[in-house]
Amino acid sequence: MDDKRILDAVRSPADLKLLSDEELALLACEIREEIVTVTSQTGGHVASSLGAVEIILAAHSLLDCPTDKLVFDVGHQAYAHKLVTGRLDLFDTLRTYGGVSGFPKPDESPYDVHPSGHASDSLSVALGLAKARDLRGGTEKVVAVIGDAALSGGMAFEALNHIGQAQTPLVIILNDNEMSISRNVGALMKHLGYMRASTQYRQTRDSLQEKLESSGPFGTALANFGRNMKESMKQFVIPRSMIFEQLGILCTAPIDGHDIGALRETLSTVLATDGPVLMHVVTKKGAGYEPASRNPERFHGVGPYDIATGELVKKEAAAPSYTDVFGQAIVREARQNPDIVAITAAMKDGTGLAPFAEEFPDRFVDAGIAEEHAVGMAAGLAAGGKKPVVAIYSTFLQRAIDQMTINCALPGLDVVFAIDRAGIVGEDGPTHHGMFDLAYTRMVPHLRVLAPSNEAELAGALHTALALGGPFAIRYPRGTAEGVPVPDEPPLFEPGRANVVREGDDVAILAFGRMVSRAVGAAELLAERGVQARVVDMRWVKPLDVQAIAAAARTKLVVTVEGGVLAGGVGEGVLAELARMGSSTPALTMGIPDEFVPQGKADLLLHDLGLDAQGIAAAIEERL
Amino acid sequence: MDDKRILDAVRSPADLKLLSDEELALLACEIREEIVTVTSQTGGHVASSLGAVEIILAAHSLLDCPTDKLVFDVGHQAYAHKLVTGRLDLFDTLRTYGGVSGFPKPDESPYDVHPSGHASDSLSVALGLAKARDLRGGTEKVVAVIGDAALSGGMAFEALNHIGQAQTPLVIILNDNEMSISRNVGALMKHLGYMRASTQYRQTRDSLQEKLESSGPFGTALANFGRNMKESMKQFVIPRSMIFEQLGILCTAPIDGHDIGALRETLSTVLATDGPVLMHVVTKKGAGYEPASRNPERFHGVGPYDIATGELVKKEAAAPSYTDVFGQAIVREARQNPDIVAITAAMKDGTGLAPFAEEFPDRFVDAGIAEEHAVGMAAGLAAGGKKPVVAIYSTFLQRAIDQMTINCALPGLDVVFAIDRAGIVGEDGPTHHGMFDLAYTRMVPHLRVLAPSNEAELAGALHTALALGGPFAIRYPRGTAEGVPVPDEPPLFEPGRANVVREGDDVAILAFGRMVSRAVGAAELLAERGVQARVVDMRWVKPLDVQAIAAAARTKLVVTVEGGVLAGGVGEGVLAELARMGSSTPALTMGIPDEFVPQGKADLLLHDLGLDAQGIAAAIEERL
Repeated sequence: MDDKRILDAVRSPADLKLLSDEELALLACEIREEIVTVTSQTGGHVASSLGAVEIILAAHSLLDCPTDKLVFDVGHQAYAHKLVTGRLDLFDTLRTYGGVSGFPKPDESPYDVHPSGHASDSLSVALGLAKARDLRGGTEKVVAVIGDAALSGGMAFEALNHIGQAQTPLVIILNDNEMSISRNVGALMKHLGYMRASTQYRQTRDSLQEKLESSGPFGTALANFGRNMKESMKQFVIPRSMIFEQLGILCTAPIDGHDIGALRETLSTVLATDGPVLMHVVTKKGAGYEPASRNPERFHGVGPYDIATGELVKKEAAAPSYTDVFGQAIVREARQNPDIVAITAAMKDGTGLAPFAEEFPDRFVDAGIAEEHAVGMAAGLAAGGKKPVVAIYSTFLQRAIDQMTINCALPGLDVVFAIDRAGIVGEDGPTHHGMFDLAYTRMVPHLRVLAPSNEAELAGALHTALALGGPFAIRYPRGTAEGVPVPDEPPLFEPGRANVVREGDDVAILAFGRMVSRAVGAAELLAERGVQARVVDMRWVKPLDVQAIAAAARTKLVVTVEGGVLAGGVGEGVLAELARMGSSTPALTMGIPDEFVPQGKADLLLHDLGLDAQGIAAAIEERL
Repeated sequence: MDDKRILDAVRSPADLKLLSDEELALLACEIREEIVTVTSQTGGHVASSLGAVEIILAAHSLLDCPTDKLVFDVGHQAYAHKLVTGRLDLFDTLRTYGGVSGFPKPDESPYDVHPSGHASDSLSVALGLAKARDLRGGTEKVVAVIGDAALSGGMAFEALNHIGQAQTPLVIILNDNEMSISRNVGALMKHLGYMRASTQYRQTRDSLQEKLESSGPFGTALANFGRNMKESMKQFVIPRSMIFEQLGILCTAPIDGHDIGALRETLSTVLATDGPVLMHVVTKKGAGYEPASRNPERFHGVGPYDIATGELVKKEAAAPSYTDVFGQAIVREARQNPDIVAITAAMKDGTGLAPFAEEFPDRFVDAGIAEEHAVGMAAGLAAGGKKPVVAIYSTFLQRAIDQMTINCALPGLDVVFAIDRAGIVGEDGPTHHGMFDLAYTRMVPHLRVLAPSNEAELAGALHTALALGGPFAIRYPRGTAEGVPVPDEPPLFEPGRANVVREGDDVAILAFGRMVSRAVGAAELLAERGVQARVVDMRWVKPLDVQAIAAAARTKLVVTVEGGVLAGGVGEGVLAELARMGSSTPALTMGIPDEFVPQGKADLLLHDLGLDAQGIAAAIEERL
């Protein structure tokens, strides 16, 4: 709003040391405005980033980064960090191809310590940094910022357990926003609730309320979030000891995470402590922007929106998302089969399970950010006669490959993995692309794997998996489906039976999942050039349709197209079948090469990878 | 010793209900004798199984399994469970091909709830079983038995957090033996130590001592373990609250885990509780057999031994183990490079890091049973300028594939994964074979992967990985190496450059790791039949030697041989290179088919899989 903002004068975190608490509070408002302005155009992780502004300013005003290390857990709360570490001018490129990442990325800035994105890893990284410092005889500070939800991830507990023993200086800022992503789960959260309700915290909170009501361009919203918070307080007394202290980690009483003065005062004390300290900070997701603080779940990861109303700028979707189709399909199945149980790892909305949870609350389980436990629990449910469906994003299921293999597949249990966000996901970039699931599901014995090519196929795949029993994985992409009608009675697929969607005898394109429609597009382009391409929707990643592959080998070129890494991917599986048959037909495998894929619009990235109709057609022409 | 044992009369757990506490105590002695007698021949997990005898008898005397569910964590403590659930007659087949598994296996017995083997999963499985029961409206009991070390695994904490919230009846028997596998690590253990030192516990303990001194054929040993324990007690008072209670899980005061009466009394109370309870039981590893209680680490997983002395029946080893060679090689490297740090996840001895830990105590880190944290911490150490080497068994690294990918490979950090027990491991069976690492390392961009074919190559691989920097994986098998001398100055390998170990132009065998010597054997057999086989030690799984593959394509048949699953394995990677070259040379990929592999001697299993010299030669002859 002002022509001259403090923010514009901040070129590095060192500049923050020159500012008073009041100026830092003003800067916080400017940063919120910048975040809202930019993300209303680009989309992004709004609620959590708005909640962590003061924490980040307090930390950077006291630390000497990049010598000191500020490690973010998950990292989607770090927009303010980006803005004060020299990336203001580029901030409007947030989450775009070649632009500023939505997460800390070491290749983007020396201030970004590690590639955040997967929850609960910051404490391990921080302890490693502290240990490296100690071995070197260094004196730099190491500070980790972790949300309450990420603490439910087992990796964080493993690190806390080790930190409590190691007793080296290390500050953990617990960004306790009472709710991250989805409703908090677990007993630890209840414990944190007691802490928040302590007298000391409430007094601090009350004194803050006044300041907030009068400051900043988003003043009303700020006041509102304060009131809501106060109302939810209960009259508990702070427990004498808490979990962290029993683990050997000093723990502060909870302080207000939007009070820059209190944050700086506590943090400067804590930074001088000769051992591990957990600084308990209570924040409000979406703080300072009323639509986000009112509806933080929707403003977790959000597309472009109208600043005044908070309404999403909706594109006319040609079709529902795969996620929504899955959500409807599992409700349909669950009405037929009372044994179906749905499990999410803190992603009820993200995985489309909200309608299921509403209709079958007893049969819905949110395991928290705890993929290992979610999959292990699914094994127990299946051993107990239930039919669990575990819906987890492809990239996060990487956390539970072992449990999928040992707990579920080895005993052949009826567990269905609904692997959402498979393939290139777009703006969240390399930590979030679902590049590996084809490889990591293929390697698991007993596991059958389906890659539906459209929403009707997705409904059929789920129906088939539940009807046939045994361990199953169904992988489907982020975003809008293909726009085909979903049948009321989903079909039962014969295992290992592909579906020829276009005839042609010059070349056979064996396509998987979302790549089928692109292969059809390629076939149309090739037809214009006189090449008749067969397109096969392979449907099954495991077992493969050997007859379809044999038939393909009778054309001039066998082409496979998949939305995952080539190394270990299903194209190699097709090559193995061709080798077994003794085929000498040339083959071309298309997929993601042996590199991490940057952020950007998914269609653009697929184009760059040669995985759109043009790219597929061009590669085929070159080989014919 | 007696002709008539109680044990011989126990055909099912129901029989235990007829026995008095004194008879159960006698039965415990008989079971210990049986365990020692059999494992002295077969080898096995002696110390932990001896420690859990009374827990298992108490549980089975009060539960009604298999309707009730007794879930073992890790499962190597469950020998007594096997003996009282109808497997006494088969027990001498322990860990042999087709024999009784060393771990609970649902396909072996309805009393075995899930395939135990990987730590920290029992609580998730138990909660799933409890949830299934609640949904069904059932009333069966669910009891999990978990060791203190397994509690340091994050998956267990994730489950505890959920159990505390779910508040459904579920009993967790914490088998606190103060030390599992390797020295305990972590602050949680310290906390458990306070509990053990409580007055109430010490009183129970003292009264027990007398009983133990006069009973059983292993009486002296039993008395000894009691004394040692008492000496280590400290004068702490029991804390008012502890971690588990803060998570919403009732917790008993620690009781003596070798007092069958106390165990039964407490457990019967606990089983009647209307919510989750943790029953804190203190046991002694190796209890009742002095050599094992004196040296529980050596008697964790052990080969055949002499009962009287506890000395291992040593086979004349033709060569050191790969593990020992690695342990020596990393010491050698660490002497040259002060930045090298070695990390284990509770397997200091198992991974050969004991000499390193002794020579470089500051640069050695035991992360506990916490593979995710171990790998995340390695990323932090590398980001801080160190050169961490993380030594983890192939099957357990399955727990940290995500951290290897996102925390280490994505930022291209200098982290070396020393993947021990890669390939078929033998007697521990399907939960422990290292079948998947070739697939799960191949899929990771930036990661370079070496498969040394002998101990000299292993030293060279480690040297190369540390010299070149970046993320590296080195996979090597369990057991005796090939008997070649390890050079004092290990060679630096050129990336993607294979080593032709035998010339031949009829067929080219591209072999990986331990399979190279078998391929040479196959080539010798083929030579007798007039077929000249080239054998290439491929050395690099990633990057592959494209020239060696092109040269192979100029023979009549390209053969790949690897010690991992074919699906996603490196043989498929070779096929992909052949396809890229446009080769039409027939190819044969040999490896582990799409099935879990049973237990048994590794050589026998490899023979069954066709992965010995005869099998390889026969498969090649068939294809030529």
